[in-house]
Amino acid sequence: MIANTPPPPYYAVIFSSLRTEVDEGYEKTSDRMFELAAQQPGFLGVESARNELGITVSYWESLEAIHNWKQNAEHTLARNTGREKWYTLFKTRICRVERDYGFEKKVIGH
Amino acid sequence: MIANTPPPPYYAVIFSSLRTEVDEGYEKTSDRMFELAAQQPGFLGVESARNELGITVSYWESLEAIHNWKQNAEHTLARNTGREKWYTLFKTRICRVERDYGFEKKVIGH
Repeated sequence: MIANTPPPPYYAVIFSSLRTEVDEGYEKTSDRMFELAAQQPGFLGVESARNELGITVSYWESLEAIHNWKQNAEHTLARNTGREKWYTLFKTRICRVERDYGFEKKVIGH
Repeated sequence: MIANTPPPPYYAVIFSSLRTEVDEGYEKTSDRMFELAAQQPGFLGVESARNELGITVSYWESLEAIHNWKQNAEHTLARNTGREKWYTLFKTRICRVERDYGFEKKVIGH
């Protein structure tokens, strides 16, 4: 659920969006894009959450991997449909992850 | 709701987390941290969403601004309480935003 990324540096694409009220095809296409992204060379993982605002962060080995995913024909078609139907507003940010650290609660006892 | 950030480069802190079932003080502290972060030098904006997974992305002018926010005493106390009570798992990623682009639906007519 939290992406199991390698040590930095690697890259992140932060996609922040607000939806329209049009659901037609949205969930199916969204599921398909997660499936398809995971098959791309250089894909490292993805995390996603939505309340009113949706945030999806995908992680990649290189800028080239991000570029290639953007060129994918099925992904391009989905993005075009997204602009036409599903999103009122979005912002995409391409980032280089410089540093990361984590925490996991230890279960004590037994 | 989507942060109105300036042209890149700038910095992002991606905080991905899974919660415990302990709610004690969580919402109040979370609200306070949003309020306090917004008062820090170099703060550019924040976006947040949660289903099971929570993702909060804060945006900053510089690594120094991120460092100073991490040193803030009230923030440090909140992070310690987070580890003790509210989170089973989290990952923090410090990123340099290299490029961004957006979309806003145009309302046609009238």
